Amino acid sequence: MRLLVGFPFLLSLFIIIGCVSSRAERSTYIIHMDKSHMPQAFTAPHHWYSSTVDSIKIAQPTTTSNGHQSPARVLYTYDNAVHGFSAVLSKDEMETMKKSPGFLSAYRDKQVTLDTTHTFEFLKLNPVTGLWPASDYGKDVIIGILDTGVWPESKSYHDEGMTAVPKKWKGTCEVGEEFSSSLCNLKLIGARYFNKGVIAANPNTTIRMNSARDTDGHGTHTSSTAAGSYVTNASYFGYASGTARGVAPKARLAVYKVIWDEGRYASDVLAGIDAAVSDGVDVLSISMGFGQRTPLYEDPIAIASFGAMEKGVFVSTSAGNRGYEIGRIHNGNPWVTTVAAGSVDRWFSGTLKLGNGLTITGWSMFPARTIVKNLELYYNETTSACNSAELETLKNLGSRIVICENKGELPVKYQMGSVDAFAPESVKAVIFESKFPVIDDDYFEINTFSFPGVVISSVEMKSVINYAKLGSTSTASISFQETTLGTTRAPAVSSYTSRGPSRAYPGVLKPDIMAPGTLILASWAPVAPVTHLRNTSLTSNFNIISGTSMACPHVAGVAAMLKGAHPKWSPAAIRSAMMTTANTLDNTRNPIRDNGYNLAVALPMSMGSGQIDPNRALDPGLVYDATPQDYANILCSVNFTTSQIKTITRSNGYNCSNPSSDLNYPSFIALYNNDDDGVLVRKFKRTLTNVGYGGGTYKATVTAQKGTTVTVSPRTLVFGKIYDKQTYSLTITYRHADLTFNTSGSIVWVEEKGKHTVRSPIVVARRVEIEIEIES
Amino acid sequence: MRLLVGFPFLLSLFIIIGCVSSRAERSTYIIHMDKSHMPQAFTAPHHWYSSTVDSIKIAQPTTTSNGHQSPARVLYTYDNAVHGFSAVLSKDEMETMKKSPGFLSAYRDKQVTLDTTHTFEFLKLNPVTGLWPASDYGKDVIIGILDTGVWPESKSYHDEGMTAVPKKWKGTCEVGEEFSSSLCNLKLIGARYFNKGVIAANPNTTIRMNSARDTDGHGTHTSSTAAGSYVTNASYFGYASGTARGVAPKARLAVYKVIWDEGRYASDVLAGIDAAVSDGVDVLSISMGFGQRTPLYEDPIAIASFGAMEKGVFVSTSAGNRGYEIGRIHNGNPWVTTVAAGSVDRWFSGTLKLGNGLTITGWSMFPARTIVKNLELYYNETTSACNSAELETLKNLGSRIVICENKGELPVKYQMGSVDAFAPESVKAVIFESKFPVIDDDYFEINTFSFPGVVISSVEMKSVINYAKLGSTSTASISFQETTLGTTRAPAVSSYTSRGPSRAYPGVLKPDIMAPGTLILASWAPVAPVTHLRNTSLTSNFNIISGTSMACPHVAGVAAMLKGAHPKWSPAAIRSAMMTTANTLDNTRNPIRDNGYNLAVALPMSMGSGQIDPNRALDPGLVYDATPQDYANILCSVNFTTSQIKTITRSNGYNCSNPSSDLNYPSFIALYNNDDDGVLVRKFKRTLTNVGYGGGTYKATVTAQKGTTVTVSPRTLVFGKIYDKQTYSLTITYRHADLTFNTSGSIVWVEEKGKHTVRSPIVVARRVEIEIEIES
Repeated sequence: MRLLVGFPFLLSLFIIIGCVSSRAERSTYIIHMDKSHMPQAFTAPHHWYSSTVDSIKIAQPTTTSNGHQSPARVLYTYDNAVHGFSAVLSKDEMETMKKSPGFLSAYRDKQVTLDTTHTFEFLKLNPVTGLWPASDYGKDVIIGILDTGVWPESKSYHDEGMTAVPKKWKGTCEVGEEFSSSLCNLKLIGARYFNKGVIAANPNTTIRMNSARDTDGHGTHTSSTAAGSYVTNASYFGYASGTARGVAPKARLAVYKVIWDEGRYASDVLAGIDAAVSDGVDVLSISMGFGQRTPLYEDPIAIASFGAMEKGVFVSTSAGNRGYEIGRIHNGNPWVTTVAAGSVDRWFSGTLKLGNGLTITGWSMFPARTIVKNLELYYNETTSACNSAELETLKNLGSRIVICENKGELPVKYQMGSVDAFAPESVKAVIFESKFPVIDDDYFEINTFSFPGVVISSVEMKSVINYAKLGSTSTASISFQETTLGTTRAPAVSSYTSRGPSRAYPGVLKPDIMAPGTLILASWAPVAPVTHLRNTSLTSNFNIISGTSMACPHVAGVAAMLKGAHPKWSPAAIRSAMMTTANTLDNTRNPIRDNGYNLAVALPMSMGSGQIDPNRALDPGLVYDATPQDYANILCSVNFTTSQIKTITRSNGYNCSNPSSDLNYPSFIALYNNDDDGVLVRKFKRTLTNVGYGGGTYKATVTAQKGTTVTVSPRTLVFGKIYDKQTYSLTITYRHADLTFNTSGSIVWVEEKGKHTVRSPIVVARRVEIEIEIES
Repeated sequence: MRLLVGFPFLLSLFIIIGCVSSRAERSTYIIHMDKSHMPQAFTAPHHWYSSTVDSIKIAQPTTTSNGHQSPARVLYTYDNAVHGFSAVLSKDEMETMKKSPGFLSAYRDKQVTLDTTHTFEFLKLNPVTGLWPASDYGKDVIIGILDTGVWPESKSYHDEGMTAVPKKWKGTCEVGEEFSSSLCNLKLIGARYFNKGVIAANPNTTIRMNSARDTDGHGTHTSSTAAGSYVTNASYFGYASGTARGVAPKARLAVYKVIWDEGRYASDVLAGIDAAVSDGVDVLSISMGFGQRTPLYEDPIAIASFGAMEKGVFVSTSAGNRGYEIGRIHNGNPWVTTVAAGSVDRWFSGTLKLGNGLTITGWSMFPARTIVKNLELYYNETTSACNSAELETLKNLGSRIVICENKGELPVKYQMGSVDAFAPESVKAVIFESKFPVIDDDYFEINTFSFPGVVISSVEMKSVINYAKLGSTSTASISFQETTLGTTRAPAVSSYTSRGPSRAYPGVLKPDIMAPGTLILASWAPVAPVTHLRNTSLTSNFNIISGTSMACPHVAGVAAMLKGAHPKWSPAAIRSAMMTTANTLDNTRNPIRDNGYNLAVALPMSMGSGQIDPNRALDPGLVYDATPQDYANILCSVNFTTSQIKTITRSNGYNCSNPSSDLNYPSFIALYNNDDDGVLVRKFKRTLTNVGYGGGTYKATVTAQKGTTVTVSPRTLVFGKIYDKQTYSLTITYRHADLTFNTSGSIVWVEEKGKHTVRSPIVVARRVEIEIEIES
């Protein structure tokens, strides 16, 4: 199967792990079962699974010191998004298990990687027009958050003005350590926790907070981003101050804690998703992912999301934070929405005022209210790199503002770290230099700023140095805690966001869409430090952090409101509406740029179809829909075994009679290998469904990536009434040698006499290489 | 005049100053004039004074470098609380001035010394009963604040819910640097500034903020304490958080900026008081004072307050912060209310939790949100004094909580300073030891806490050290920003409050009353640092500070409400109501203790009649009233010249036909000299006025100071109706040799079949010695 030649390396991790445990020691496995094989004698799958485990378990070996001598037992039964269970078994027991009736597949439990509020304005959400009023702010839509739990006392979960919990809700507010059931309310309607997997993997560990309570902050941040209530006087040490709110401020939240200080295990993640689907969530927000080399049939999020999708649950996932190199994206499976992260039109600053009147606004997130006032500047060319030894020489200077030049084109964070650790008492503040235009240094994607100072550009630094050279009469003042809204060239693709193509399934273009992910303000667990001041860690009710983890709940919030406004739309239709209406231009009306590529024009492999535009997504005109069987057809088209396929699709009546790699997706990707040297032709078929009221005629506008030819047939589509479908074909012809990679193509279906435009990016890209790399 | 033998030393300051300037150089003088001498040709005093100065000025000497060669000119004309003017004159010109008709007295301009909100609860102010509802929270009463100005944007000055400005108000909202007249509102009804004096004294200085805007914070603090509006979410870095409000939240504020970064001059202070009286304030709050050795006739506050009192303005002044030694009080004149400072039933803490479960609540005001979590304890007996060299040895320890023992019985602040300056990165937090019971160390009267840690008692320290000695398994956590209300043994007299007797006039017992002064939360100028974190200064909208400056506006606020409830009461009646109803017991029902005397029972020389009790002051039953003539009689009884007397009383028709040192005061003081060896007898006459509705019979209950005898005649007083007056005499017989000084006496008039008790303290004290000391 051409599309999947990159897969053989994916099992290396398990071989390594396998070497360190003897065959007699037990560990946790996730076992997928074909439920149609369940004997009639069993009234419930749990009995079948328990009975199976009982029948295969081998007498316990003598105790060893590593604590893994737990009895063979079932941890979780999964029966909603997934069919199967997790169990603590030895390798030998597992081998026997494989021969049991109904066994589909199994894999060792593994750890997941965890990938903020002016963004509603930036996304143009407003009370007057568009998605907020159309969906009544997401009222009665339930968003499930799979994460580190929730800090229920956070003001973001107040339920003032919320109506009764929707009747469809079957979830619970689980009692646990420092968590009573009364902590849930009309906003936070559910809270559950799953840690049998982490305990099985670490039997001697005591769970520090054995409840849905969030001691990390991440889950509180993501959930409040998706659907937090209004909170006045929100700020991060005076930055980004104002009224915080989630994207869908009236949606309900149900929180599933599956990530623990003590570990982050697939078996627990699977249990969380399974429970959320059973509880009745409409949308799932999953800001985490397994290694990009995990095959779909061993990726719990991919597997469980299939079941969620099947039940109409929209699943938003994070692309990952592994940066600008291609092929590092995770969660790149066809049935979820994979979200990239972008910047926001907001800038945090301090103002440097020189004694000669010159005023420079520099980057600062120094997390304390301070004023640096009329202090002498200190500039010494021989020590201005501000490394530890050089800082030592400033010991007896008296109170000064020290100028630190960026001599090695190093990111500012290294110099900041040195100053943080080694600056003597005399250094009251520091002026740092960024070699990049200030807004583009990736330092400006993190909140760490533990020493009073500002970061300014090299051009500005020249003026400051010239003035400082005047000597002891040269003074300056710095004020802090400034927030500027409406900064230009936003959004830009964040440098850290993981790029496609997806190694798990390169046949669809991933990521799908971009949402605000950089320096997002949202609520936080007040027991978890958010930053530090020299050697003192600081806590806060709010945090400003960056990541695709922050972008993901933005999309979940938008999806909740689209679901509220269009209850009949499938997850694929919702995703299509977001993608075909996404913006490819920033707020200066120029193409969105990529912070990870020196501000080159951003490509779809970085940002998908572009920046999410919630109000346009409300009314996309046409959508590319897909059914569960369509996704199954994809699985049938790759070299998966029947068991591997059924691990994902379960025994739900899918057939492989019509395998197809050509999913009805709202984007196009054609791949080549480095050794392809002839003309390649890739043909796609797509069907558009009219979701606009009344009919309409749409004409295709095609832009081809340089070095490719794109033909579309027909070029005009006429839709009669709502839900009318029309089909077209698109063919990309390309030669490896002709390609340029700093451009991409697109097809836009433009409504005649109408406002709708339905855009899909078209990308020709190199198939990612086989690399020998072990995921942690 | 026996009472005033202590006075001759008072002129030493001026002789010293006189020596450093030539006779030709000009400086600022304050000149008091007898207005009855104004020739009819002049329509206004200003013309008369200008004309006089014109007539005496001498051709300007050649310019010298010290900048004092300003032309002879009038700075201010004072015509309300004071008659006279200030002018820039040379010594020779001044000599001529003295011969001008109407000249009373003159003295060189001189500098003043500047002496914080749960206190309303502590003072039992509540919306249901007592002074708040009786006065409608001070509505329409105007409080003038003489101070460093005001930060008008502070939320304490919002005027939500305030009605129109009272018609009697004649003040203005003066335009100045960064101060437009629109910054005043229905709460902050006036703001003026006076700096001719400071400019005249420093002609080359540029005034940094040439307006009523407060760049220091002190004036914003005192004014918001007296009458600040409700402000939600107030706190000092998380301590004392809640809703802040002034004592009289509906009173109006008029702010007179007379204290400048560039100097604090008598001529400006005088101008401020004069303007306030003219503008129509009802109450003046003056949190500053001149040196305790300044004679009344050269003390601008004493002089101008006489005029204010005469016009019915209640003047609240601060006793000063010169500590526990006797005779250091300032503002100890008979016609103002002199306020001592006490503690509040509030405690700021961090909780130290040892790994063995032991939990200790220690003092902390560390001004940042931080958590110190499960760090190893470090105890080393040889380095535990934590001086700079010892701290250096901890450099490579790894993250630790270091135990610092208090080996020298030094106040904690010295050790904190050392840690602040010298602790290496490895020291994450420090446990400090106080040798005193923790609540009594005077460190607990200041907000400085610049390093993460807690101060615990020696007893608690023993347990911590024993646990730390177990080694590397000994860990601890510290949480911060805790506020406890309702702590016991409050109030206590603050250690810093200046003690009586008053050197300016020892014939009345001073201070008069005590009010909350220690660690008071109120608004602050956000440009002025409030504390620091190692070498970073921190700013805040609120500050928690201590001083008689903070106690003074509490009394001003109470006085405003008493004035509102009883518009006809004189300043003396208001003061009497506060004094005779004051509490001498703390919140444990034991006598109030003195933090300045190792928690001995507090004496009247420290706290006056006791802690102010606003609700009881509303209905005192009887008052000791006094008229302006009564105060004039005091002045006639001492060895002042007519000019000196008229400097204070002006030409307002007082006569010295009935000189008397026996003022109708609500307290009693009898003095002795060290060489008095016989039996001394001091006889007092007092008149009580019934301010209760209906009549009443009162009986005297007398307690004598050990070693004294007190007789009262008659011992029963019968009052018919409201405003009935009754007189009694009180005689103290004492012998120096018999006296003990750790007790005091009292007379309490107890109403039969009624609730009123009218208490006055009785003190026999040593007349303070003549000391050769120069005030700065």
